[in-house]
Amino acid sequence: MPTISGKTVAEHNSRESCWIIVHGKVYDVTDFLDGGSKIILKYAGKDATQEYEPIHPPDAITNNLPPEKHLGPVEPDTVEKVVVEITDEEKARQERMDSRPPLTEILNLHDFESIARQVLTDKAWAYYSSAADDEITHRENHAAYHRVWFRPRVLRDVTNVDWSTTILGQKSTMPVYVSATALGKLGHPDGELNLTRAAAKAGVIQMIPTLASCSFDEIVDAAQPGQVQFFQLYVNKDRAITKKLVQHAESRGIKGLFITVDAPQLGRREKDMRMKFEAEDPSVVSKSGSTGIDRSQGAARAISSFIDTALKWDDLKWFRSITKMPLILKGVQCWEDALQAYDAGMAGVVLSNHGGRQLDFARSGIEVLVEVVENLKEKRGLSFPNEKFQLFVDGGVRRATDVLKAAVLYSFCAYGTEGVEKAFQILHDEFEMNLRLLGAPTIKDVVPSMSHIVAVPGDSLYNNNYESLKYAQLKGKL
Amino acid sequence: MPTISGKTVAEHNSRESCWIIVHGKVYDVTDFLDGGSKIILKYAGKDATQEYEPIHPPDAITNNLPPEKHLGPVEPDTVEKVVVEITDEEKARQERMDSRPPLTEILNLHDFESIARQVLTDKAWAYYSSAADDEITHRENHAAYHRVWFRPRVLRDVTNVDWSTTILGQKSTMPVYVSATALGKLGHPDGELNLTRAAAKAGVIQMIPTLASCSFDEIVDAAQPGQVQFFQLYVNKDRAITKKLVQHAESRGIKGLFITVDAPQLGRREKDMRMKFEAEDPSVVSKSGSTGIDRSQGAARAISSFIDTALKWDDLKWFRSITKMPLILKGVQCWEDALQAYDAGMAGVVLSNHGGRQLDFARSGIEVLVEVVENLKEKRGLSFPNEKFQLFVDGGVRRATDVLKAAVLYSFCAYGTEGVEKAFQILHDEFEMNLRLLGAPTIKDVVPSMSHIVAVPGDSLYNNNYESLKYAQLKGKL
Amino acid sequence: MPTISGKTVAEHNSRESCWIIVHGKVYDVTDFLDGGSKIILKYAGKDATQEYEPIHPPDAITNNLPPEKHLGPVEPDTVEKVVVEITDEEKARQERMDSRPPLTEILNLHDFESIARQVLTDKAWAYYSSAADDEITHRENHAAYHRVWFRPRVLRDVTNVDWSTTILGQKSTMPVYVSATALGKLGHPDGELNLTRAAAKAGVIQMIPTLASCSFDEIVDAAQPGQVQFFQLYVNKDRAITKKLVQHAESRGIKGLFITVDAPQLGRREKDMRMKFEAEDPSVVSKSGSTGIDRSQGAARAISSFIDTALKWDDLKWFRSITKMPLILKGVQCWEDALQAYDAGMAGVVLSNHGGRQLDFARSGIEVLVEVVENLKEKRGLSFPNEKFQLFVDGGVRRATDVLKAAVLYSFCAYGTEGVEKAFQILHDEFEMNLRLLGAPTIKDVVPSMSHIVAVPGDSLYNNNYESLKYAQLKGKL
Amino acid sequence: MPTISGKTVAEHNSRESCWIIVHGKVYDVTDFLDGGSKIILKYAGKDATQEYEPIHPPDAITNNLPPEKHLGPVEPDTVEKVVVEITDEEKARQERMDSRPPLTEILNLHDFESIARQVLTDKAWAYYSSAADDEITHRENHAAYHRVWFRPRVLRDVTNVDWSTTILGQKSTMPVYVSATALGKLGHPDGELNLTRAAAKAGVIQMIPTLASCSFDEIVDAAQPGQVQFFQLYVNKDRAITKKLVQHAESRGIKGLFITVDAPQLGRREKDMRMKFEAEDPSVVSKSGSTGIDRSQGAARAISSFIDTALKWDDLKWFRSITKMPLILKGVQCWEDALQAYDAGMAGVVLSNHGGRQLDFARSGIEVLVEVVENLKEKRGLSFPNEKFQLFVDGGVRRATDVLKAAVLYSFCAYGTEGVEKAFQILHDEFEMNLRLLGAPTIKDVVPSMSHIVAVPGDSLYNNNYESLKYAQLKGKL
Repeated sequence: MPTISGKTVAEHNSRESCWIIVHGKVYDVTDFLDGGSKIILKYAGKDATQEYEPIHPPDAITNNLPPEKHLGPVEPDTVEKVVVEITDEEKARQERMDSRPPLTEILNLHDFESIARQVLTDKAWAYYSSAADDEITHRENHAAYHRVWFRPRVLRDVTNVDWSTTILGQKSTMPVYVSATALGKLGHPDGELNLTRAAAKAGVIQMIPTLASCSFDEIVDAAQPGQVQFFQLYVNKDRAITKKLVQHAESRGIKGLFITVDAPQLGRREKDMRMKFEAEDPSVVSKSGSTGIDRSQGAARAISSFIDTALKWDDLKWFRSITKMPLILKGVQCWEDALQAYDAGMAGVVLSNHGGRQLDFARSGIEVLVEVVENLKEKRGLSFPNEKFQLFVDGGVRRATDVLKAAVLYSFCAYGTEGVEKAFQILHDEFEMNLRLLGAPTIKDVVPSMSHIVAVPGDSLYNNNYESLKYAQLKGKL
Repeated sequence: MPTISGKTVAEHNSRESCWIIVHGKVYDVTDFLDGGSKIILKYAGKDATQEYEPIHPPDAITNNLPPEKHLGPVEPDTVEKVVVEITDEEKARQERMDSRPPLTEILNLHDFESIARQVLTDKAWAYYSSAADDEITHRENHAAYHRVWFRPRVLRDVTNVDWSTTILGQKSTMPVYVSATALGKLGHPDGELNLTRAAAKAGVIQMIPTLASCSFDEIVDAAQPGQVQFFQLYVNKDRAITKKLVQHAESRGIKGLFITVDAPQLGRREKDMRMKFEAEDPSVVSKSGSTGIDRSQGAARAISSFIDTALKWDDLKWFRSITKMPLILKGVQCWEDALQAYDAGMAGVVLSNHGGRQLDFARSGIEVLVEVVENLKEKRGLSFPNEKFQLFVDGGVRRATDVLKAAVLYSFCAYGTEGVEKAFQILHDEFEMNLRLLGAPTIKDVVPSMSHIVAVPGDSLYNNNYESLKYAQLKGKL
Repeated sequence: MPTISGKTVAEHNSRESCWIIVHGKVYDVTDFLDGGSKIILKYAGKDATQEYEPIHPPDAITNNLPPEKHLGPVEPDTVEKVVVEITDEEKARQERMDSRPPLTEILNLHDFESIARQVLTDKAWAYYSSAADDEITHRENHAAYHRVWFRPRVLRDVTNVDWSTTILGQKSTMPVYVSATALGKLGHPDGELNLTRAAAKAGVIQMIPTLASCSFDEIVDAAQPGQVQFFQLYVNKDRAITKKLVQHAESRGIKGLFITVDAPQLGRREKDMRMKFEAEDPSVVSKSGSTGIDRSQGAARAISSFIDTALKWDDLKWFRSITKMPLILKGVQCWEDALQAYDAGMAGVVLSNHGGRQLDFARSGIEVLVEVVENLKEKRGLSFPNEKFQLFVDGGVRRATDVLKAAVLYSFCAYGTEGVEKAFQILHDEFEMNLRLLGAPTIKDVVPSMSHIVAVPGDSLYNNNYESLKYAQLKGKL
Repeated sequence: MPTISGKTVAEHNSRESCWIIVHGKVYDVTDFLDGGSKIILKYAGKDATQEYEPIHPPDAITNNLPPEKHLGPVEPDTVEKVVVEITDEEKARQERMDSRPPLTEILNLHDFESIARQVLTDKAWAYYSSAADDEITHRENHAAYHRVWFRPRVLRDVTNVDWSTTILGQKSTMPVYVSATALGKLGHPDGELNLTRAAAKAGVIQMIPTLASCSFDEIVDAAQPGQVQFFQLYVNKDRAITKKLVQHAESRGIKGLFITVDAPQLGRREKDMRMKFEAEDPSVVSKSGSTGIDRSQGAARAISSFIDTALKWDDLKWFRSITKMPLILKGVQCWEDALQAYDAGMAGVVLSNHGGRQLDFARSGIEVLVEVVENLKEKRGLSFPNEKFQLFVDGGVRRATDVLKAAVLYSFCAYGTEGVEKAFQILHDEFEMNLRLLGAPTIKDVVPSMSHIVAVPGDSLYNNNYESLKYAQLKGKL
C-alpha cells in the first residue's frame, strides 16, 4: 500500500470528506460522522493519535471500519504537528499530581478514590465515576454491604489466618480477582499493564477486558510465567470475530471466559454526558444545539455498537463448541437466570449490575447472592462454596471482604503500578485483621451464622467521596 | 349590544362599582370583589386582559358571571393603555431566559424542572410547584417510586423493543398520556397548545383540562387529523353546564372523559399563598392585614368555586346517560373506591392524589396500585393489564416508567413546544434502554417478578430541585 | 399588720437576712435561698415584682412561704425604684416585635413558632421550647404523626362538614381543647387571659393550669357566661391545700379535673438550664462554679417542690370523695395504667409525656393510643370514641388533627389574643378542608380504615424550627 | 550495675546502635527499631522519658526488652536536657484549657467530650476518639440505645428511689463500674489515679487496665480502705508473666478478673494513624514513603505485641487453677460464646465490641444482650439479673442507664479528678430522675415491659460531637 502525504490528508478536512491519521495510518472516517462527529471533525485532515488513543481500544478502527477505508500509511515528515496547549486548569491538575501524599499515608481504598478525583483529568473522572440515571444502583452497591453485620467468635486460635482460595481451579492469594474495566489509558499512560504487574506481585488473577486501552496481546505478554489471567468478552454481532477472539485467548493460556450479559446497550451515564458538553466550545454547541443533532453519546456508542443485542441462551451451546475454557456469565441479576446458567453448563455466574452503570434500580450483587444461594440449594441441591458452579459478586466494595474494580482503577490512576500494589497490601492487612477478630482461621470458617442484617450509621468516607449529580446549567454558569 | 367608551369604564373604578375590560369586552365584577378583591381593584376601570389571561380559563367569566353583568364591547381606541413597567427582577429573569442551555444539553426531566425554576416568573413557579400543607404527599409521590427495584433478565433477544400500547382502546406510542393541568399560559404564551403539538409529533394522547388557559375548542382545533384527545372534567353544581360541556366534547371527537373526584375543594398550597403576599405592596398588605380580610385564597377559589362538593356515586348513572365516551374516575385513593368504580361501570380509574396538591398525607398512586390490583383480583377475578378496566397512576414520575404532568409543564415553560418534544424524546430513549436492560422486548414482558420493594439511597437530582417550604417572615426581610 | 418602710427593707439585703417586696408586700425569703439564691439575692432589700411576676404563679409565695414570713405591706413611696436598663439585645428584640408580619400572612401553626422564636426574650423561648435530655421524645411527638397516612374516600357529599364534638359531656366546636401550660406571662403581659378570651370566641374549652401566671380566679372571671373551663392539678403534699383548690374550682363551675401524674419531679431541660448560665454575670458564675453550689435548677424546683412524689392509685378514692367533677389522669403512657384508671372510675386519661419535658425516650401519645384502644377493647370490651371513658392525646401536633399547647402558646406570645384567634381559625380551615378531602362529613366518619402507617419524607417546616441542643462552651465564646 | 555517663549514651544515637534513657535508666533499643523507629531515633542517645511516659505502661520496657538490654542507671548530671519547644498550636491549646467553663455548667456527659476535644492534644484526642475502619460499630454503639424507648408507669410512690446494686458480690452505689482504658496519662498527668479517687468518693468500682499509664501498684495504693477494684487482663504469650500478674492482683485484694477476649490483634484506627503522619516532618515522611517502610502502626503494635493470639477456651481451666477471683470474659459478641462461657464456669461476660475499636460491623452490646438473655433462658434455664452469671454491657453510653468508659476518660482529661466526680454526680441526678419518672423505686422494678424498640429522631449532641473520618490529603493541605 503506497504512502500518502500529510498534505493530501490535510485536504480531507470536512464533513464531506474526512480523513484522520492514527498511529501513522490514514483512515477515511467520513461515514463515521453521525455519532460524535464534532470531536472527529476537529481532527479532520490531521493526526488524531493523541486524542484517539486513551479512549479507544487499539483495534477499534480495525473492527469497525471496513478495510476499504484503511487508506494506508502516511509519509511521516509531511504531517503537521498538532500542538496541544496546556491550559491553566491542566497546569493546576499537574501541580495536584505532584502533591500526592506518599503511599504510606494511603490507609484504605477510599483514599485512592479521593486522590484520583483530584488528580485525574475531568474527562477521565467523569468516565470512570459516572453511572446510570440517578446513580441509585451505583450507591446501593456500596450501601448494601453496610446492612450486613458480623457475629464474631472468641477464644479460637487465630495466630495463623489464611484467606487464600481457588477461583475456577486456579490459586489466588485472596478471595478476589481484578475485574475488567474499559479505557485504562484515560487514567494512566500504561493503562491495564499496571494491573497485570501488580496482580503478578500480589498473586491475584486479572480479568482482561474486551475494551482495554492496551491490546490483548500486550497484556498477556506483560504477565509473569505462570500468572493466571481471565478474559471478559463482549459478544460481537459477527460471530466469526468473536470466535477468533475466544480461540486466540484460549491459545494464549487464558483460564476462564467471562461473557458479559448485562450490556446489550451501553447505559446512559449523565455525568459523562455532561462532561462532553463542557469540554466543547460553548458557542458552537449552542448553534449545533438548534440543529437538533444529538452528538452526546458519540464515543461510547461508537466503541460498543458491535455488541450483539440478540445474544440468547441458545448461543451458549455454540460457545461450548468453540472453547474448552470454563464459561462464566457476567451480569446475572436474579436467581432464575443463575439457575438457567447452571443448567446450561456454565462454570459460574458473576452477580453484577455492571457497577450501576447500566440499568438504574437494579439490585446489588450482595442482595442477589442471598436469593441465588437459597434457590440453587432448594431446586438443584447445591451448597456453596461450590467448585463446580462458582458465584462471584462485584460492585460497591471498599473494604477487605471484596475488591471493587473501580477502586483498583483509582489506585493506578493516582499512583500507577505501585498504587495497585498498595491497594492489594491494604486488602491483605484487612483480611488478616478481620479473620482474626472474627475468630475464623480460614475463609471456610466464615459461616452464615457470623452475619446479621440490619440498618447502619452513615459511611462518612463513602458519602463524602460521592459526587452529587448536577443539572443542566444556564450558559452564563459554564 | 352597544359599545361602551373607555372613559365610561374608567369611572367605575371603586369597590362600589367595579368594571373591567377583558379581550375588548366590559364586565361588571362588583359582586365578585369578596375574594381576591385587591388584585381586581388594581384594574378597576381598566383593561385587565394582560393580568387576567394567564391565570383564568378563557370561559371563566362566561361561566361565573351572570349574563346581565356582561356589559358589551368597549370602543377600542378609547381605552387607556395599561403600562406595565419591567422591574429589575423581571429583566434578570429575561436574561436567564436568554441563557437557557440548548435542548441537546437537557438529559432528563429533572433538567426541565431545574431550568423552569430559574426562568419562570415567581408567580408561575409558585403556582406550578406548590402542593398541600407540608408537601409530604407531593414528595412521597416521587419517593415511592424509589422503593421499587428491578429484577432484570438476561440473554433475551432485545434487538427490537416495543413500548407502544393502547389506552382506552386508542393507540399510543408510549404507555403514558399527557395529564391535565390548569393555567398553561402562566408558563408560556401558547399555553396548552404546546402540549397538543408535541403530543401529535410523539404519538401520545393529550388530556384537555377543564381549567385550561386556552379554550377547549382552540385545543381541539390545534390537533392533527386522527390525533387522540381526552377531556378532564370538574363537575359543575349546575349540571346543565356540565352536560353541555360533556356533549360538546363528545361531538368534537374526544375519546375519554376523566371525571376528577379528589377535588371537592381546592387544597391550601402555602408556597402559592405566600407568593401572593410577596407580590403585593407590603405597606398595603400590612394595613389591610389589620382589617382582618383574608384575601389569600382569592384567585384559586374564584376559578374553582363552581365545583360540586356534593358529587356522589349515584351521579355516575347520569353521566352514563348523557355520553357514550368511556368514563374514568380521576383521583381514586384506595381499593374500596376502585372496586366501586368497577361495579359502577367505569372504564378505569386514575390512582392519583392530585400531585400532592389536595390532601396532605394521602398515599402515592404507586402504593395504592398494589392494593387495588390485589383486591380486584380477589373480589372480582380481574387480572391486569385489563382492557375492560384500566388502571392509571400519576404523580412523582421523573424517569421513563411514567411521565409526570408537572414535568411536561416544566418542559414547555422552559422551551415551548420543542421542549415538550425533547421531553418525549428523553422518555423514548429511556424506554428503549430500560426494556433492553430488563430483558423485556415489549411492555407485556415487564412482569411483577421483575420488581422488588426496598429502601434506597437518596435521589440527588430530585432532592436538590425540591424547594423547602418557608415560614412567614419578619417584614424587614421581605 | 403595720406597714414597713422601704429603708428598713433595704437593710435586709444579704444571705443572712433577705427581704424582698412583691406587689407592695414584704416577705422574708432568707430560708428560701438554697435554690436559685443568686437571682433572689440580686433583689434582696428591693422591689422584685417585675422579675418575680412572669415566672411565678400569683399564689406561689402564699403557698410556699409560712405565714410568719409574710411581714406586711411596704410604705409605697419609700421604696427605691429598681431601674432596669434596656440592653441592645432587648432593643433589637423590640424592633423585631415591631416587624411581625400581619396575621393574614400567618398560614399555619409553624409560623407562630417561627415568629415567637424571634420575638420572645431568650429566657421565655428557652423555657417554652426546652425539653428533657436529648429532646428525643419532644421531637418524636411530632414525628410520630408523620408516620400516619390517610386513605381518603371519594364521591361522598361533603358540602357540609362538621367537626364539633363533646368533651366530658361539654360541647366543643372542634375536637381539641387548650391544654395547661405554666408561666404564661413570660410570653405576653396578659398571660393565660389571652387563651380565655380566644377560647370563648372559638367555642373551645380551656384547661386552667395550677402554675398559671394569672391567678385561678382571674382566669375564671375572664370567662364569658357559659364558657367551659377545666382545671389541671398538681397534687400538693399538703392535701388540705389540694382539697381547698379542688373544691374552690368546683364551686367556680369548673367542669373537669385533670390530675397530672407524670411529674413527680420536674424534668431536666438543658436548653433552659444553659440559658440561666448565660443570663448571669460570667465572672461571678466562674467563681461560684468553684464553690460547687449548683444553682442551675433553682426556679423550676422552687415552684414545683410542693408536688407530692408519693401520689398513688389509692389516693384516687379520696379525690372521688371530695369532688363530683369528672376526674382525668394526665400523663398516662401505657395501656396497663389506662386500664387501671378505667377500673378506678376515672372519666378518661390524657396519653401524654408532658410535651417531652419529663422522661426522655417516653413514647408519643399517638403511639400509645393504639395499644390503649386495643387492650381496653380486649380486656374490658370498650369501643372508642366512648363517652364514659374518654381518651385524649397531646404533644407534637402542628396541623388540624390535634392542637398542641405549645403551638397555642406561641400564637399568643407573638400576637396576643388575636394570635390565638387566628390559630383557631387556621385549625378551623384545616378541619373543613381535610374532612372534605377525606370524604368524611363528620368526625365520626373518620374511621380506622382511613389510616395507614408508614415512613415519610422529612417535614421541612418542623425540622427548620427545631433548634439543636448545644454543648457547654469555652468561656471566651460566651 | 555501674552507672553510665550521659556522654557515652549520646554516642549511641543511630539505627546501628540506639540507646535511650527512661526514668534515669539506660536501655539498648536497637533491636526494637522495626516498628515506630522514627520516633525512637529522634531520642537516640537522649533522655526519652517525657515522650515515653504518657504512651507506655510503666512496665512496658521490662516486659518487652530482654534483661541484657537493660544497661543500668545513667549518671544524672551528665545527661543533656531535652528542650521541648512550645508551639503556637500548643499555646492556643493551653489558652483553651484556661477557658474551660466551670463544672457547674457541665450538664451531661456529652459536655465532657465536647470540652475534651478542644483541650486535649491532637495526639491524645486521636488516640481516645478513634475506632476501627469506618467507625460504623463505634457509632452504632450509641445509636443502638436510641432504638430503645421507655414505657413508664404512674401513681407509684417514688419519693425514695434507690439505684444501688451489687457487682460480682461487691456493693456499688450505681449499676455501673469504671471500665479499663489504656494510656490515661495522655489526657492528664495523674492518669488513672483520677479514676481511683473519684470512684472512691462515688462508691463506684474501678477496673484497672493492663495497659495503664500508672503502674498496677500505684493504682491499688491510691485506693481508700475497703474500695473495691477489678483487674482487666490482656493474656501474655508467656503464661508465667500472666500468672505472676494475676496472683499479684489477687494478693493485693482485687475482686474480679476481666479477661479480654476480643483483641488478639489491635484494630486499625485510621484517625489515630493519620494523626501520626501529621505529627511527623512531612519532607522526611515523603522520602521514607518511597522506601516502602510502613511505620504507621508502631506504638500501638509495640505495646500490644505480647498479647496471645492463640488464647482458647481450654485455657480457661488453667485460669481457674491459678486464682480464686471470679473470672469474666470481656468482649463476648454472640449468645453462643456467652453460653460457652457459662458452661466453662465463668462468673459473667461483658458484651462488648471494645468500643468499636476492633472489628468494624460488630454489633452493639445492647443488641447482643437481647439474644444472650433469650438463649441462656431457653438453653440453661437462667433468668436475669442473676448473681451466679452476670451480664455486663459497654460502649456508646452517654446518659444514666449506663456509663461509657470513654465518657469517664473525657471527664478527667478536661477537669481531672473533680471532672470524674462531676460525671458521677450527673449520673446520680439522672438515675434519680429517671427512676422517679419511670415509676420504678429500685432498679429491680425496671422490668422488660418498660421498654419498647423502635426508630428515633437524631441525637443532636452525639452527632455534633462525632468527628467525621477524613481522607489522605494532598501535601499542600497539610
